[in-house]
Amino acid sequence: MTRPVTLFTGQWADLPVADLAATCAGWGFDGLELACWGDHFEVDRALADDAYCRERRQLLERHGLGCWALGAHLVGQAVCDRIDARHQSILPPEVWGDGEPDGVRRRAAERMKDTARAAARFGVTQVNGFTGSPIWHLLYSFPPNDFAELERGYEAFAEAWSPILDVFDAEGVRFGLEVHPTEIAYDFVTTEKTLAAVERRPAFGINLDPSHFAHQQLDTAEFALQFADRIYHVHVKDSKKRLDGRRSILGSHLNFGEEARGWDFVSPGHGDVDFEALFRALNRIGYDGPLSIEWEDSGMDREYGAQDALAFVRRTDFPASNVAFDAAMQRDVAENAD
Amino acid sequence: MTRPVTLFTGQWADLPVADLAATCAGWGFDGLELACWGDHFEVDRALADDAYCRERRQLLERHGLGCWALGAHLVGQAVCDRIDARHQSILPPEVWGDGEPDGVRRRAAERMKDTARAAARFGVTQVNGFTGSPIWHLLYSFPPNDFAELERGYEAFAEAWSPILDVFDAEGVRFGLEVHPTEIAYDFVTTEKTLAAVERRPAFGINLDPSHFAHQQLDTAEFALQFADRIYHVHVKDSKKRLDGRRSILGSHLNFGEEARGWDFVSPGHGDVDFEALFRALNRIGYDGPLSIEWEDSGMDREYGAQDALAFVRRTDFPASNVAFDAAMQRDVAENAD
Amino acid sequence: MTRPVTLFTGQWADLPVADLAATCAGWGFDGLELACWGDHFEVDRALADDAYCRERRQLLERHGLGCWALGAHLVGQAVCDRIDARHQSILPPEVWGDGEPDGVRRRAAERMKDTARAAARFGVTQVNGFTGSPIWHLLYSFPPNDFAELERGYEAFAEAWSPILDVFDAEGVRFGLEVHPTEIAYDFVTTEKTLAAVERRPAFGINLDPSHFAHQQLDTAEFALQFADRIYHVHVKDSKKRLDGRRSILGSHLNFGEEARGWDFVSPGHGDVDFEALFRALNRIGYDGPLSIEWEDSGMDREYGAQDALAFVRRTDFPASNVAFDAAMQRDVAENAD
Amino acid sequence: MTRPVTLFTGQWADLPVADLAATCAGWGFDGLELACWGDHFEVDRALADDAYCRERRQLLERHGLGCWALGAHLVGQAVCDRIDARHQSILPPEVWGDGEPDGVRRRAAERMKDTARAAARFGVTQVNGFTGSPIWHLLYSFPPNDFAELERGYEAFAEAWSPILDVFDAEGVRFGLEVHPTEIAYDFVTTEKTLAAVERRPAFGINLDPSHFAHQQLDTAEFALQFADRIYHVHVKDSKKRLDGRRSILGSHLNFGEEARGWDFVSPGHGDVDFEALFRALNRIGYDGPLSIEWEDSGMDREYGAQDALAFVRRTDFPASNVAFDAAMQRDVAENAD
Amino acid sequence: MTRPVTLFTGQWADLPVADLAATCAGWGFDGLELACWGDHFEVDRALADDAYCRERRQLLERHGLGCWALGAHLVGQAVCDRIDARHQSILPPEVWGDGEPDGVRRRAAERMKDTARAAARFGVTQVNGFTGSPIWHLLYSFPPNDFAELERGYEAFAEAWSPILDVFDAEGVRFGLEVHPTEIAYDFVTTEKTLAAVERRPAFGINLDPSHFAHQQLDTAEFALQFADRIYHVHVKDSKKRLDGRRSILGSHLNFGEEARGWDFVSPGHGDVDFEALFRALNRIGYDGPLSIEWEDSGMDREYGAQDALAFVRRTDFPASNVAFDAAMQRDVAENAD
Amino acid sequence: MTRPVTLFTGQWADLPVADLAATCAGWGFDGLELACWGDHFEVDRALADDAYCRERRQLLERHGLGCWALGAHLVGQAVCDRIDARHQSILPPEVWGDGEPDGVRRRAAERMKDTARAAARFGVTQVNGFTGSPIWHLLYSFPPNDFAELERGYEAFAEAWSPILDVFDAEGVRFGLEVHPTEIAYDFVTTEKTLAAVERRPAFGINLDPSHFAHQQLDTAEFALQFADRIYHVHVKDSKKRLDGRRSILGSHLNFGEEARGWDFVSPGHGDVDFEALFRALNRIGYDGPLSIEWEDSGMDREYGAQDALAFVRRTDFPASNVAFDAAMQRDVAENAD
Repeated sequence: MTRPVTLFTGQWADLPVADLAATCAGWGFDGLELACWGDHFEVDRALADDAYCRERRQLLERHGLGCWALGAHLVGQAVCDRIDARHQSILPPEVWGDGEPDGVRRRAAERMKDTARAAARFGVTQVNGFTGSPIWHLLYSFPPNDFAELERGYEAFAEAWSPILDVFDAEGVRFGLEVHPTEIAYDFVTTEKTLAAVERRPAFGINLDPSHFAHQQLDTAEFALQFADRIYHVHVKDSKKRLDGRRSILGSHLNFGEEARGWDFVSPGHGDVDFEALFRALNRIGYDGPLSIEWEDSGMDREYGAQDALAFVRRTDFPASNVAFDAAMQRDVAENAD
Repeated sequence: MTRPVTLFTGQWADLPVADLAATCAGWGFDGLELACWGDHFEVDRALADDAYCRERRQLLERHGLGCWALGAHLVGQAVCDRIDARHQSILPPEVWGDGEPDGVRRRAAERMKDTARAAARFGVTQVNGFTGSPIWHLLYSFPPNDFAELERGYEAFAEAWSPILDVFDAEGVRFGLEVHPTEIAYDFVTTEKTLAAVERRPAFGINLDPSHFAHQQLDTAEFALQFADRIYHVHVKDSKKRLDGRRSILGSHLNFGEEARGWDFVSPGHGDVDFEALFRALNRIGYDGPLSIEWEDSGMDREYGAQDALAFVRRTDFPASNVAFDAAMQRDVAENAD
Repeated sequence: MTRPVTLFTGQWADLPVADLAATCAGWGFDGLELACWGDHFEVDRALADDAYCRERRQLLERHGLGCWALGAHLVGQAVCDRIDARHQSILPPEVWGDGEPDGVRRRAAERMKDTARAAARFGVTQVNGFTGSPIWHLLYSFPPNDFAELERGYEAFAEAWSPILDVFDAEGVRFGLEVHPTEIAYDFVTTEKTLAAVERRPAFGINLDPSHFAHQQLDTAEFALQFADRIYHVHVKDSKKRLDGRRSILGSHLNFGEEARGWDFVSPGHGDVDFEALFRALNRIGYDGPLSIEWEDSGMDREYGAQDALAFVRRTDFPASNVAFDAAMQRDVAENAD
Repeated sequence: MTRPVTLFTGQWADLPVADLAATCAGWGFDGLELACWGDHFEVDRALADDAYCRERRQLLERHGLGCWALGAHLVGQAVCDRIDARHQSILPPEVWGDGEPDGVRRRAAERMKDTARAAARFGVTQVNGFTGSPIWHLLYSFPPNDFAELERGYEAFAEAWSPILDVFDAEGVRFGLEVHPTEIAYDFVTTEKTLAAVERRPAFGINLDPSHFAHQQLDTAEFALQFADRIYHVHVKDSKKRLDGRRSILGSHLNFGEEARGWDFVSPGHGDVDFEALFRALNRIGYDGPLSIEWEDSGMDREYGAQDALAFVRRTDFPASNVAFDAAMQRDVAENAD
Repeated sequence: MTRPVTLFTGQWADLPVADLAATCAGWGFDGLELACWGDHFEVDRALADDAYCRERRQLLERHGLGCWALGAHLVGQAVCDRIDARHQSILPPEVWGDGEPDGVRRRAAERMKDTARAAARFGVTQVNGFTGSPIWHLLYSFPPNDFAELERGYEAFAEAWSPILDVFDAEGVRFGLEVHPTEIAYDFVTTEKTLAAVERRPAFGINLDPSHFAHQQLDTAEFALQFADRIYHVHVKDSKKRLDGRRSILGSHLNFGEEARGWDFVSPGHGDVDFEALFRALNRIGYDGPLSIEWEDSGMDREYGAQDALAFVRRTDFPASNVAFDAAMQRDVAENAD
Repeated sequence: MTRPVTLFTGQWADLPVADLAATCAGWGFDGLELACWGDHFEVDRALADDAYCRERRQLLERHGLGCWALGAHLVGQAVCDRIDARHQSILPPEVWGDGEPDGVRRRAAERMKDTARAAARFGVTQVNGFTGSPIWHLLYSFPPNDFAELERGYEAFAEAWSPILDVFDAEGVRFGLEVHPTEIAYDFVTTEKTLAAVERRPAFGINLDPSHFAHQQLDTAEFALQFADRIYHVHVKDSKKRLDGRRSILGSHLNFGEEARGWDFVSPGHGDVDFEALFRALNRIGYDGPLSIEWEDSGMDREYGAQDALAFVRRTDFPASNVAFDAAMQRDVAENAD
């Protein structure tokens, strides 16, 4: 048996979860990774209403769907980020409040603790999300960075997240950072530093999404092997470079979907990610959790694409082998010696 | 005759300009692009002291050196940037003042006007520099950008710089933005938008530095052709990608010179820039200004490198042709008709 | 809904159209692009016989097939070409006549006018075809070209075709030149010059066939974007380079299908054309006309290939999206302000 | 009709042939290439027991399976190899005997003659296998080879195999060497020398397996064209390079399946072999024998893989064409002349 | 000693040969390949005036220059070409005459015979040049070629040139076709056919110019090896592809030197030709004739370029070795046995 | 100051060292890495004759040459190799003796101990060489390797070499294995295992020669970084792949210098090795020992080549930098605070 294939519901939050569940079941998905926005998985209701988690679970079971993880990207982003107007559009009003940065970060941290509690109540041990970053804006060192400030950034991240991770530990839930530009970790080097900053505590791992690696020209399969013990969850998302000497790999401050960008997200299997290499690496490290399709492609119909992506994963994620080869060619010498 | 080769003195500001001039002359440079920091070209003294410009010019002439441009990158950066602690280290104390952002930007703008005035007094019609950017931190659109804010960023840039450019016009001096990450323009798309924001007024052009294009995988020669009428000055600087699937093109928040970076600056001719293609493009567009070596390579001795770079430019920047080929093979039909 | 997929019948003219229509319908094509040779679409009969067009249309409808375009390549080729013996084999006897070049060209032009008239009668507004070229033989400039002669070539093309296009305009039909070596336009530069020669009149556009671009190492998707308003029809045909240092990209004067050629036509999806990029570009420019498979592969069974090509297009030409991404992640700020 | 697709049973010798036949028939294979080990095809029993061949054939026919070739790789390896302990594990006890090298080689040669006899009795005219090599250990010339010794190696091979080939001729059976590292021939050059050593006698040809060419960076399609008259049988097997500057193409003395190797075998279609080019080449040379899947992939489930490979071949090995193109566009000049 | 380096004077025919000889000697050339146009080498005067050849030779000797070959490209072109107006501009008036094609070809053939005679008189045994081609215009087979016509083209070439080659044989001079688009041979395939057409008679060989191979993506070193016995002379000329998806490899009917072309000629060492590989191949085949620089680069000053090219050849054409390696490491076994 | 450049004399043993020293000094070398064969450095005489070492040293000093290392490749090869006839040609007669393998290996080991003693006496602390390998012949695992045998091979190597290394330790000399096919270590993986087998004792390090890495497609610069503390000496030697689909990377059992090989040794700077990357890596790890040119190129004159290689190293091995960049742009904040 291969890994279950789920749909991450974050890009479908305009649809009620009841409709989406029916649709995805019809398409053949094994489950959903519920986003903690829209009405998909409401953390406050899950804690306030004893029946909420049970009903959500029953809804999924009615359609034969499992759920192995929650997606709490948006609130997580605010925990140690430099807060600005853009955060208002991704946060619940009660977390945004008056928008004063310290308060926003504090309330976001509390909501993340609640998310761990709600996940445990819902019977899910994995919460994926973003962390934000106090140092992302220092990406290109001009004016020249004071690199001690960067070290302090990793410490600030750890200070903000450690109390949250304590709650995760207490609830028996793990957090998976989606390694991603704008987050505290977005590549090999920064992931090493981030894991070190929280002393590689088991509560903190990775939601591996290869679409954020391809345009950086990083090898996702190598990443999976190098951080094998921290690969807690996997997104199936793709991106494609379109470099012709005129389009910048940095994106030109253009929105996704603009023709003149140097890269963009595309439906899985339509881009630069070598998924077979990634899946083989996941086999090597023994990852048996979900492959969760996060679907985003500005040039493809969404409903067509979700089904296309599911079919792609089904045909690409073949079962691993335990057999040593040439064994069938070799007689046992001892036996022959009889 | 080929173009003059100058050294941009910005990375040599630890040396007194008198010493540097002697050294560069000895190495065979044709001139210097004086940086407006260290004691190389002091804008305040140039305006306050009637003799200053004359003495600077005499110093250069004594060594047989010309000067066709000033480099005012550091103060320019503060004109429309988001000011933070890092700016203190690159600004003169009187421009930094108390560090209050609006004041810093206002004083930086005044200093840039003075720079145009000082350049005119010194007899130079080209000032190169940075502009800063109010929107650089929005490079990666997450939390999702409000793209109207980006448009406002280009407008804010234009508002901040237009009064400065008025002084440039009055003084008969032109400004050359070094298109560069962290600036308002860093690639084809953003340069188009930036030029449009100032309505392509002639006072505002480009100091073309290919080292900032190569890691973005942009074609500098094409850039020169596309923005031919705005190529006011050219830097000779190089950079090299070292992508192996583990190093990110984004730089990993590491300082230049760190082994694990995905790219770094290197001495001209040691990197990815196709200088011959660039110089041929400069021939096509009729650029006859300086080729100004901005030398930076964390793995090479600086003095060795400056001479190596000069030799590289001398052997690579060959003279252009005006001859149409095969002409020597063709008789004039009319003549034959005699 | 995606674009209709048709078969261009030019390479199947050995089969009666009645048989071919039945076969293609059985394979699942949406329609046919009828060639104006064989018995597929006979221009003279269409004009002479009131019932002809109706019967052709009924034949197609009986099989559930549409027809959105005619293919008039062979006669079109003779309109402004340098006529030689090879034209006799591709022209109807009455157009070839005695083979005297001026007469051939004149009769070909008249037949093209008739084709427009017949198309209108048949209820089709698109005629695809070749133009021929008075200057193709000057491809490589040795003996050195008199480049004024090339300019005259574009003018001669325009003179020959303008009266034809007048009839197209009168009939409400448009002509689509298949940009192709041996024609007046075969790449970006020559297409620009060709369109300029007819003053970009709307009657004259492009039948875009990527197989003629790949071996020239041209980017068909970029071509579609650049000439967006003139992409009137699209052929789906593929070609493949086989360069090993011994095979020339120029073709070695060998026939298609010869082993030693540097490139050859192959069934769609088996070659160098990036059809996904092309179809995404067609989505961007809003092209909703047919994708017409022109099938040619000297190494594949024709019947197998036509079905293989149809399946390829069906799985590659996915529906476009109108959704802006990340929208589902963003709350309305106004709403939050409640 | 395309070529029959068989499974080479060598890697499945742990399964009784009766079970394997049933399974393969169910998967849709056209036949089996029976290995001469396990109980798949027992040469000694075939010669000793009059019923054996008939029963094997009936077993296959019961499942609708054909058999066009036997695989005698293991015993063949010992015929002219430098014998060491490893051979004991691949040889039947009666061939290995006391392991004294000359005796092992002599008994292996006799068994190969018997294999030809048994094949003839079974009704198969093709036996594939290895030859061994007296000079493989001299692959890298240090200490510097005496190249005369290499010439003697080819002669020794010919001396060892000629008597065997005499029996093949007598039985009307042909031998197909699987060109492969560790054999007397493993690339273009050594195949030329090997064929010359046996004076290109028809009894000795090639079992072409592209998986042994890809990591050597050889072009299998070119090989098929160059040795067209000696391509007697074809294996469908794939391999993939994973070179990142740290993994050696030489394999690092690691076992197949180890992560750190520079290349490895993978299921057909998952690797570097260009099967479409190979199959087109086979079309050109008129090869109409089996495509025999030799399945080996340490990262994929064997049963999944065999079916995946079969589906891959079915969709990739399309039927060839006999049609000359553009013919439908050309009228017969003579006819026109009527 | 390495090969002599000469300058082909064809592109310098606007200069009197006396001036050019002095200049080239000053630059350090070993000799000149004199063009048979301008006043460089005048065939008619050489035959008419007993002193002419002696004086030309003395001129060269005065400057220490050798001459190993004449260049008779322009008249050669007319021998079997389709004559049009362009030929008038490259032919002497007396060869062009009234421009009637048969007459032009006939007079060109006579002039080529005279060229052989003049070469012999001058003491040179090699004449390089073009042949023209009756079939070049059939390069792209549309309208579909009658391939029998192509075969007749090779025959027509042989008929036109055989009487000329008879004179070459009689004079002890050899002809070297510069394999080149627009000529009867321009790649591997057509060179094979061309040599076969003249039955590989020794009078007809090749002037190998790699600049005509690079844009066809042909490997010049392989060409030298394959046609080793017909490499009579070598030109050093370079070309460079500039393919970006918008520029066609076919040249867009643009003149050399136009920005939008997909390739162009450049000064040796500035383009795509792998000269080291070529020179190593020339070493292998024992070519010890001149390396004759044919200089053409529309973007470089001609005088600068000729010197740059000479320096390039001097540092790239290193002397070959006769030593077998590792020999110094090996003791003689016999000696040891003492 | 950059690193000294020496010539490894192994390929020049046909010349008396006195002549070679004079020649190399004239070419500008800084020193010689003396081979322990020919008359270059005779271990037995060095131990037997008190004056020998002094005289050798004086000879070098007379020419201004240093010596930092000895090359003892040939005898080292025999220490743990499978001995065959080829070893006779590379060993001194007294080491070869009767050729009985155990005796040869034992005598070779004793000679290596003596080499350490002689080196100490000569005043050199570095001996480079080969180790041989008991398992090289198992490179390709067919017949399938018993991988326990490979482990035993590493152990056998350690057993053979440990007593030798004890003498090296006692003499204060270090051994540098030239990582190389046919040796116990030839890539990253086998070097790790080899170093582990001798418990990373400091007496055993690496003579890094990039020419053995390039054809394996290994990154030498990465190797230098990974094994930084064991890079004891560096050879400058180059190799070049010539892969065209017909030439095997395995070498086809052809001698070096044969045209049909897939790769070959070439003079430094003429091949695939990225020496600048290597030298930058050596700068990073602080290697300040010799760059020793081991010259081998079957297509280049040896004397020309040695000088060409020396010039190549001189211009490529630039001095490193200790400067942090942008430092000159930053004022000290504290200072500004005054």
